[in-house]
Amino acid sequence: MSQITRLGVSRRWSDVVIHNGVAYWVEVASDTSQDAAGQVAQVLKQIDGTLAEIGSSRLDLLEVLIYLADLDDAAALNEHWDVWIPAGHAPVRACVGATLSPGCLVEMVITAAATNEP
Amino acid sequence: MSQITRLGVSRRWSDVVIHNGVAYWVEVASDTSQDAAGQVAQVLKQIDGTLAEIGSSRLDLLEVLIYLADLDDAAALNEHWDVWIPAGHAPVRACVGATLSPGCLVEMVITAAATNEP
Amino acid sequence: MSQITRLGVSRRWSDVVIHNGVAYWVEVASDTSQDAAGQVAQVLKQIDGTLAEIGSSRLDLLEVLIYLADLDDAAALNEHWDVWIPAGHAPVRACVGATLSPGCLVEMVITAAATNEP
Repeated sequence: MSQITRLGVSRRWSDVVIHNGVAYWVEVASDTSQDAAGQVAQVLKQIDGTLAEIGSSRLDLLEVLIYLADLDDAAALNEHWDVWIPAGHAPVRACVGATLSPGCLVEMVITAAATNEP
Repeated sequence: MSQITRLGVSRRWSDVVIHNGVAYWVEVASDTSQDAAGQVAQVLKQIDGTLAEIGSSRLDLLEVLIYLADLDDAAALNEHWDVWIPAGHAPVRACVGATLSPGCLVEMVITAAATNEP
Repeated sequence: MSQITRLGVSRRWSDVVIHNGVAYWVEVASDTSQDAAGQVAQVLKQIDGTLAEIGSSRLDLLEVLIYLADLDDAAALNEHWDVWIPAGHAPVRACVGATLSPGCLVEMVITAAATNEP
């Protein structure tokens, strides 16, 4: 069996799973009392934390699938996103509206290169 | 060309595609006359069947993206999910509400390690 | 760091990202003034273009996640899809309804084998 690294494993999910040099994870804002802009800022900061934890960086992002509870929040998303993404290294991105858990305004599914496994 | 293994190929989709030691597939309940809890139980059982077919197990799940027709069914999902996931080996998971095909209450997109290709 | 190839990089996203022999990208119709059938036809043609650009073909499709603004457009989708997919080589496919950007009726998230990197 090829090695699978799981970080932050709970009963229901792992915070990150790494396999074959690829890391998979999902981020929602820890504090869902904030508005969309605040939750986006949190999620991007949390992604930074996870990237650091696995020895990767924003340069390693491959794909980010974004779910917004209200697609009208795309402007707030982009305002934070566009300055967060390192120029010349943007991942593939999809962004659609979907029903999210109560209070949750944004959810991101991240795929990143993870060569320096923790 | 790197080898691609396709199982259960129909005109519209394959039941499973395996490439570079990673298996991709989608599950919806075969019997959509059942309620959400019944459909979740079916889908998880069907995942077990696919895992066995490709020589993998629940320990190999990397990521599961779950779409619910009604996000209020998350409780029913979790009741089945939490006992189905092997402790210490949970995959990454996202769960959002989306419009599904008529009768379909839950749809799962699965990514799993598949080292022992069929 | 394992090599990451990014094509069509803008401030916000890359048109394609290739890593470890796998290509990731997202397609929406360039001309969103067309109806669902027209947008589906465009998206499939755009996928052909991207596949050619990365040295792959329809035979290399691994997984396609499809978002429709109106799931009732699934019939129009399938009409184009079923003749576009090469027999015996269908990818895994999920198709759900979600809120898309104004005018956008279909969005596809594609994963494909990309052994002949550009």
